[in-house]
Amino acid sequence: MSTQQRIFGIHPVREAIEAEKDIDKIYIQQGIENPVINTILKKLEGTSTQIQEVFIEKLNRLTKGNHQGIVADISPIKIREFAEVVEQVLANKPNPLFLVLDQISDVRNFGAIIRSAECTGVDAIIVQKKGGAPISADTVKTSAGAIFNVPICKVDHIKDAVFYFKASGVYTIAAAGKGETTIYETDTKKPLALIMGSEGRGVSHSVLKEVDASASLPLLGQINSLNVSVACGAILYEIVRQRSFSS
Amino acid sequence: MSTQQRIFGIHPVREAIEAEKDIDKIYIQQGIENPVINTILKKLEGTSTQIQEVFIEKLNRLTKGNHQGIVADISPIKIREFAEVVEQVLANKPNPLFLVLDQISDVRNFGAIIRSAECTGVDAIIVQKKGGAPISADTVKTSAGAIFNVPICKVDHIKDAVFYFKASGVYTIAAAGKGETTIYETDTKKPLALIMGSEGRGVSHSVLKEVDASASLPLLGQINSLNVSVACGAILYEIVRQRSFSS
Repeated sequence: MSTQQRIFGIHPVREAIEAEKDIDKIYIQQGIENPVINTILKKLEGTSTQIQEVFIEKLNRLTKGNHQGIVADISPIKIREFAEVVEQVLANKPNPLFLVLDQISDVRNFGAIIRSAECTGVDAIIVQKKGGAPISADTVKTSAGAIFNVPICKVDHIKDAVFYFKASGVYTIAAAGKGETTIYETDTKKPLALIMGSEGRGVSHSVLKEVDASASLPLLGQINSLNVSVACGAILYEIVRQRSFSS
Repeated sequence: MSTQQRIFGIHPVREAIEAEKDIDKIYIQQGIENPVINTILKKLEGTSTQIQEVFIEKLNRLTKGNHQGIVADISPIKIREFAEVVEQVLANKPNPLFLVLDQISDVRNFGAIIRSAECTGVDAIIVQKKGGAPISADTVKTSAGAIFNVPICKVDHIKDAVFYFKASGVYTIAAAGKGETTIYETDTKKPLALIMGSEGRGVSHSVLKEVDASASLPLLGQINSLNVSVACGAILYEIVRQRSFSS
C-alpha cells in the first residue's frame, strides 16, 4: 500500500513533476523569487495540485531539510481527470452513482466516506481542489484501503461538477438538514450524483441553488445533525436499497 | 454541558462515592494495601464502575497530583440501571428500539454512534462495563451532546443483556458481515435490540450464538467491512425507514 511522501527543495520537486508524479499539494514560501519555482508553478496550472503560499516558518515545520522555499506532498493515489471519468462511467453503466464532497475537512470523515463509497458501488468521488481534507497517508488508512478502488477526481469548484452532471443527464441531489423531503421519499433509481456538505455548514449555499433536489434523513431526537460520514453512509445505503432491494 | 472530571487521592475519591457521583473508572495501584481503598472497592462491587489495577507509573501519568494510589474518572452522565430502564421503556412503547454495543473501543466511533442513536429514536444504549471506550469528555463532544438525551446502561456481559431481551420478548439482531441476510430482508417492525460489534472483530462469537438473527449490509466493492459507526447509522436508519416510511 503506497502512502504519502513529502519532498522538498527546488530540484526534487521539479523532478517529481517531470516524472509525472501526482502532487496533492505544494507549499511555496511567500514572496520567493526563483525562475525554476516559476516554471514549476506554470507547469501545475490547470492540474489538480493545490498550491499554497505560506510563511517560511510553516515550511520549517513541514520539513527539517533544506527546502529552498518549496515543499510538496505527493498523492498516494493517481488523481483522475473529472470529465474523462464521468464520460467513461456514463458510457458503461445505466444508473451510475457519483459522490461529490463539498469541503469535507476532517480526514477521518473523508476516509470513512471513501470506504462507504467503495462498499456501496459509487463510481467516482469528486472533491474540490481547495479547502477539503488532504489525500494523505491518514486518508488511505481511515479508508481501509478503499481509496485505491474508487476513482477520485478534483474540480476547481463543486458547482462546475454540478453543472456538468446536469448537462449530462445525471440527477443531482444535495444532502440537506431537517425539514427537507427525506431520501426515503426520493427516487434514486436513475443516474445520480449525491452531494455531501462539510461538517460545519453542510452543502454550500451556491451549490444548493443549482442542484435538482435536496434530501434529508429524518432526525427523531433533539440533536439537529448527524456525523457527516454516518449521514453519507445512511444515504448511500438507502440508494443501494432502492436499486437492489425494492420492486 | 458537563464534562469528565478526574479526581485522585483516597479521601477525594471516597467523598465522591459518598456523594453518589457516578464513577466511570477507577485506577488502583497494583498491590496497594490500604483499609480505606478496600472499603471503596467493596462499595463499588456490583455497580457500573470499571476498576483497573495499574502500575504506579500509569497513575503518575494520569495526574501530576498526590494520588495516594487511586485515581477516579467521574462520568459526565448518570449511568442508568439496565433492567429498570428496559422495563420502563417496555411499559411505555409498543415497538422499542435498544442498541447494544459489544466492545466499541474507539471514542470517536462511540460518540458518533450515540449521536446516530439519538437521531433515530433509540430508547437506550447498553454497553459492557469492561473493554469498551470510556464515557469521557471526548465521548460527550463526539456525540454532539446526544449522550445527555439517551439513557446509557452498563451490564457485566453483553450476553446478560441479550438473555434479558429475549426473555422480555425483544427480538435480538446482531449486525454481521458479508454473507448474512441483509437488514433490508429483515423485519424490524417489532420490539428490537440491535447488537453492534467491535471495530476489529465484530460481534463476539459467544453473543452471536445467542441472538435471534444476524443481519448485514450488502458490500458491493472489494473492501469487506464498513466503519462501525457508519454501519450502525445505516442499519438504524433502515429500521427508521421500515417503521415510518414503508407500508
